[in-house]
Amino acid sequence: MSGSIYGNLFQISTWGESHGKGIGVVVDGCPAGLVLTEDMIQSYLNRRKPGQTKFATQRSENDSVEILSGTFEQKTTGTPISMVVMNTNQRSGDYNEIASYFRPGHADYTFHQKYGFRDYRGGGRSSGRETIGRVAAGAVAKAILNQLGIEVCAYTKSIGDIPIDYKKCNKDNILVSPLAMPDLDASEKAEKFLESKMQEMDSAGGVIECIITGIPAGVGEPVFEKLDANLGKAILSIGAVKGIEFGSGFSAPLSTGSTNNDSFQYDNGKVLKLSNHAGGILGGMSDGSEIVFRAAIKPTPSIAKSQKTVTMAGENIDISIKGRHDPIIVPRAVVVVESMAAITLVDMLFMSMTSKMSNIIKFFN
Amino acid sequence: MSGSIYGNLFQISTWGESHGKGIGVVVDGCPAGLVLTEDMIQSYLNRRKPGQTKFATQRSENDSVEILSGTFEQKTTGTPISMVVMNTNQRSGDYNEIASYFRPGHADYTFHQKYGFRDYRGGGRSSGRETIGRVAAGAVAKAILNQLGIEVCAYTKSIGDIPIDYKKCNKDNILVSPLAMPDLDASEKAEKFLESKMQEMDSAGGVIECIITGIPAGVGEPVFEKLDANLGKAILSIGAVKGIEFGSGFSAPLSTGSTNNDSFQYDNGKVLKLSNHAGGILGGMSDGSEIVFRAAIKPTPSIAKSQKTVTMAGENIDISIKGRHDPIIVPRAVVVVESMAAITLVDMLFMSMTSKMSNIIKFFN
Amino acid sequence: MSGSIYGNLFQISTWGESHGKGIGVVVDGCPAGLVLTEDMIQSYLNRRKPGQTKFATQRSENDSVEILSGTFEQKTTGTPISMVVMNTNQRSGDYNEIASYFRPGHADYTFHQKYGFRDYRGGGRSSGRETIGRVAAGAVAKAILNQLGIEVCAYTKSIGDIPIDYKKCNKDNILVSPLAMPDLDASEKAEKFLESKMQEMDSAGGVIECIITGIPAGVGEPVFEKLDANLGKAILSIGAVKGIEFGSGFSAPLSTGSTNNDSFQYDNGKVLKLSNHAGGILGGMSDGSEIVFRAAIKPTPSIAKSQKTVTMAGENIDISIKGRHDPIIVPRAVVVVESMAAITLVDMLFMSMTSKMSNIIKFFN
Amino acid sequence: MSGSIYGNLFQISTWGESHGKGIGVVVDGCPAGLVLTEDMIQSYLNRRKPGQTKFATQRSENDSVEILSGTFEQKTTGTPISMVVMNTNQRSGDYNEIASYFRPGHADYTFHQKYGFRDYRGGGRSSGRETIGRVAAGAVAKAILNQLGIEVCAYTKSIGDIPIDYKKCNKDNILVSPLAMPDLDASEKAEKFLESKMQEMDSAGGVIECIITGIPAGVGEPVFEKLDANLGKAILSIGAVKGIEFGSGFSAPLSTGSTNNDSFQYDNGKVLKLSNHAGGILGGMSDGSEIVFRAAIKPTPSIAKSQKTVTMAGENIDISIKGRHDPIIVPRAVVVVESMAAITLVDMLFMSMTSKMSNIIKFFN
Repeated sequence: MSGSIYGNLFQISTWGESHGKGIGVVVDGCPAGLVLTEDMIQSYLNRRKPGQTKFATQRSENDSVEILSGTFEQKTTGTPISMVVMNTNQRSGDYNEIASYFRPGHADYTFHQKYGFRDYRGGGRSSGRETIGRVAAGAVAKAILNQLGIEVCAYTKSIGDIPIDYKKCNKDNILVSPLAMPDLDASEKAEKFLESKMQEMDSAGGVIECIITGIPAGVGEPVFEKLDANLGKAILSIGAVKGIEFGSGFSAPLSTGSTNNDSFQYDNGKVLKLSNHAGGILGGMSDGSEIVFRAAIKPTPSIAKSQKTVTMAGENIDISIKGRHDPIIVPRAVVVVESMAAITLVDMLFMSMTSKMSNIIKFFN
Repeated sequence: MSGSIYGNLFQISTWGESHGKGIGVVVDGCPAGLVLTEDMIQSYLNRRKPGQTKFATQRSENDSVEILSGTFEQKTTGTPISMVVMNTNQRSGDYNEIASYFRPGHADYTFHQKYGFRDYRGGGRSSGRETIGRVAAGAVAKAILNQLGIEVCAYTKSIGDIPIDYKKCNKDNILVSPLAMPDLDASEKAEKFLESKMQEMDSAGGVIECIITGIPAGVGEPVFEKLDANLGKAILSIGAVKGIEFGSGFSAPLSTGSTNNDSFQYDNGKVLKLSNHAGGILGGMSDGSEIVFRAAIKPTPSIAKSQKTVTMAGENIDISIKGRHDPIIVPRAVVVVESMAAITLVDMLFMSMTSKMSNIIKFFN
Repeated sequence: MSGSIYGNLFQISTWGESHGKGIGVVVDGCPAGLVLTEDMIQSYLNRRKPGQTKFATQRSENDSVEILSGTFEQKTTGTPISMVVMNTNQRSGDYNEIASYFRPGHADYTFHQKYGFRDYRGGGRSSGRETIGRVAAGAVAKAILNQLGIEVCAYTKSIGDIPIDYKKCNKDNILVSPLAMPDLDASEKAEKFLESKMQEMDSAGGVIECIITGIPAGVGEPVFEKLDANLGKAILSIGAVKGIEFGSGFSAPLSTGSTNNDSFQYDNGKVLKLSNHAGGILGGMSDGSEIVFRAAIKPTPSIAKSQKTVTMAGENIDISIKGRHDPIIVPRAVVVVESMAAITLVDMLFMSMTSKMSNIIKFFN
Repeated sequence: MSGSIYGNLFQISTWGESHGKGIGVVVDGCPAGLVLTEDMIQSYLNRRKPGQTKFATQRSENDSVEILSGTFEQKTTGTPISMVVMNTNQRSGDYNEIASYFRPGHADYTFHQKYGFRDYRGGGRSSGRETIGRVAAGAVAKAILNQLGIEVCAYTKSIGDIPIDYKKCNKDNILVSPLAMPDLDASEKAEKFLESKMQEMDSAGGVIECIITGIPAGVGEPVFEKLDANLGKAILSIGAVKGIEFGSGFSAPLSTGSTNNDSFQYDNGKVLKLSNHAGGILGGMSDGSEIVFRAAIKPTPSIAKSQKTVTMAGENIDISIKGRHDPIIVPRAVVVVESMAAITLVDMLFMSMTSKMSNIIKFFN
């Protein structure tokens, strides 16, 4: 409950600061017998690694992961999987200045108020580097989901006021676009928009959409542990996320029951929905259709443009934040959203295994 | 973890079905010495009670609460507080028909898929009556917050596309408007809009806004147990909520860092923020300003208008849902939102008490 | 975490004081489709009901259970099962005196220190009546175990220094002996011993043994959630239990590795152990043989014999506790031990379902 | 819940196998501002390090700890503390043989049954090396307790049938005796006893006693989260522990209420107990006197003496376990018992902070 441990049956425990010795995660509750290699983890970490495009910080971290426990002959043993990425490119000097004031839009002030002091180097624990642990654990979760035919796919839905056009989308483009947009035309427009923001020494935000396919109906618990409630917590726990919506989301209030309800229909003996305003979740449980949600990501708070703030010594000052910062968080956050969704799904799939007495009897026989 | 228990240090355990014997909640972790009476609980339950306006179901439940344990001479003893509301106005006959098919927009189908069968009477556990337990527990949480000078206030921000006008708002109106709108002009417009929907045998949705004042800075844990993440889970666990956003929320992606960041400034020695796009939370911790969030509520799925669905026997049919249903969920959900926010705040306030060694030493001396 | 909620996947939430309105429990996480009736619960409650023998308090509570939620047409629905026993025979007058002093061996003093005041009527929440909720929940757990061919059987192993003789034991006698002893000769001796203690206005203690059969190998988690660790917590959470041991227990330290180790042997292709010093648990996981543990129960602290204690007003006094007290707790605690063991087993069986990837793949296909 | 994470507010997450890359722990929930250095951790690890006496395995691991996160300028920051000990002296060759059979008294068989296969090198996760994570986390817990004036002290109470004589005990001897016995005469006798067991190629067990001083009254929760229940779980989760008892423990059943009850008495205005059969805990809460418990440790299961067991290939065989094994586990387990007790105490102290409304109001003002 202390804040860096997440999950019930599939649990992750993350640690590490931006400018400490390293960043890591312990995954507890991964079933035995899953093929798991460092390469599998690395391929996800590479999607959030800095320095790959001009729209990401130019810090050149390798972010190489090492598995320290929990596998034997490339298979999980059922015991905790400890993974670590050592920090290599820490230029703490960049941050000496930060020690004396609170950056607007950052957690400097709240950390200081909560703990009495803070590790000011690069934001310490509130740095985006904290998500390395989430992505490494997410890679394990995705390996499990893969065995069950479940896919989690996130991408940039819009940057600023530039949305993707679903007609032009192609899943393969997500890894091609430097902004993780499946529509390359929109990506190009957004790149230009970002370049103008960078020239203005400013930053931008955007929306990430995530689609989950292959989830059987009935996953999620009906009251407090609703699937959407847990996905909501998971995604809102990612820094910079300011909102989440499922299916028709914030347009649902503008609709009516007759329009917003999704009709059911039999199709070759299977129950289908004729629309998906629900976003694949009814009453907190998956309904067998695609799960769809969107997360609102705020503009990067670290900007070179002048801002007003206060020093710890009691002065009002103007600052201009130097250092190597992302002009936009969205593209690198896409894999973090996927990871948190995957971790949550595995946990809730496991929790759903005890819903029916008949299944339990079958399991133990 | 099984779904009807919520919280870490301040825990609630709810139970009960729409047409069972009653609905209740056990609150575990309420500190000793808090004045608590049935009247205090009842006043909150009355705000969600049906049959009070024409925009709510005409079922006439009394919803009288009884405290069965945990208090002695009108003060809490530190032991579990069991509260129960017996069901009195169950007309199960209304629901016999429902047994044979799955209502669109409801949890009938997902319950059936998860559990193999379901208590079809009035939706059973997925009924809105489930929230009685939340509101009773919320009343306890609010009594605690009241002692700490913290207030949680929710209201209807919009119905359909009719928003309130902040210039015309008055907090007292929330209890005056049948739609819980602090702007009575907007309320009147919305009432007419709802009447038209009712004539069309259709339903409507809306947005609830919640403002929390008096929270000290530093409440919330920095990684997975962020204050916004937990409030998000709490609110998304309420049936019919399709989205949540904090501060600038889904408009943040349209902004830039220089605009969206809230500058800090000293004012008589106190740190203030010059704006509140963050909604009072930075890095998952309260920043000392007002916490602001909004929840999107979908239109009531139970409508008299004809809809397509499927029977359990394998047929495609057209249905028209009879019974006494709310044309809109929003006004009665306002107190549920307040309750879930209050419960979550108490829990996170308690969790925050161990953040500093100096505080702990002082506490035990 | 607050203390009256227990379990991870099969969770129970108990409430109620000795002299409040009632005692109850909410069971969350019971799978759907289990046959469950009030009669099934009542038969377990009857085993702990007072007033049945001269060795139990003569208070004549009926302890009639009512199921308020979670079943439909006599089957569990997967939603919380709320069960309540209303208090009927409260003679609070008996306890007025207690309000002013702290009874030795009771929780009066610690309750007062923890909460600042206490519900002094009959011990309030620390009364043995608190175990009603455990036994009702235990009945649900036993119904689940019964479907899986698992049996939990507890009995009195000794009273004072009078042990049972295994050669004379018969399981049916457990319900015949007023002291829950399977050896009726020992029971008779113990009855005489207890009569002498009662004449001396004193009380006695004893040991309860519990045997669990039918548990498959591999239940329990290897590090902190060991099966014996969780059974230990469950049993030590019962008031008056001062110790627990598994298998050879406190004689193991007097043995040697060569004697204490249980050899394995194939018998018709199945792995058997040639002895069971381990008590059926190796490395925290069930080994497929019988699980055996013993709990030490202290003598009833409420005695009529004169004792020294202190008043809340600051005086040293001599007291003699009146009221209707059990001269021994052991016989009525037997079903409580069974219940806590059963609840723990169900929880750990459910947790063990995700240990192997191959099982999970099979489950979801 | 998955087994390698422990605690509610002060949480530890351990990982690592005997012959993997290393062993570690993440401590989440340590308050900010605590002085913490690697030397402080190392001094505890040195107490469980192998190769120091002839009664411990001759493997020469350095067991050097490194702190990877959570401190800044030698003080904790409130964020997770990751600590690691890399494995250096792995002679996996010793264990090749073990791969083919199940060692009696070990978890080989249960691991195999649970997970389908196992990391057989040195017992993998079920190795005693797993306790390194517990001891490192225990050092953090002890640093916290130290600030609160609370001391946890464990020692060997008996080896085989050789007990210490309290009249001859001196706390300083615990670190002098190779067997962690505070009575050096008993230690000498026990050393000779162990030498004889080693010559017989056999092993021995013993009892560890633990005394906790300085705990205020009222720590522990009255029902399931009793202080003794949680200490019980903590200690029983240590491999080789077969039983635990508090205060008079397994002798309580042989006593009577009048003898076993501890009378209260005022002494200079403070409430004292005239005896401590309760072991410092009444109704699951600390009563302000010393907490006393004892744990029964079984003889080391790894012995060179011939034993019968089975191979995975289906044969019954005789084995003689080679390698460098402890003839007794007790002396090295003493610091593990201290650690688990300290971790549990910190957690329950933190949980107890919300028991009274008056304290909470004071805290937030």
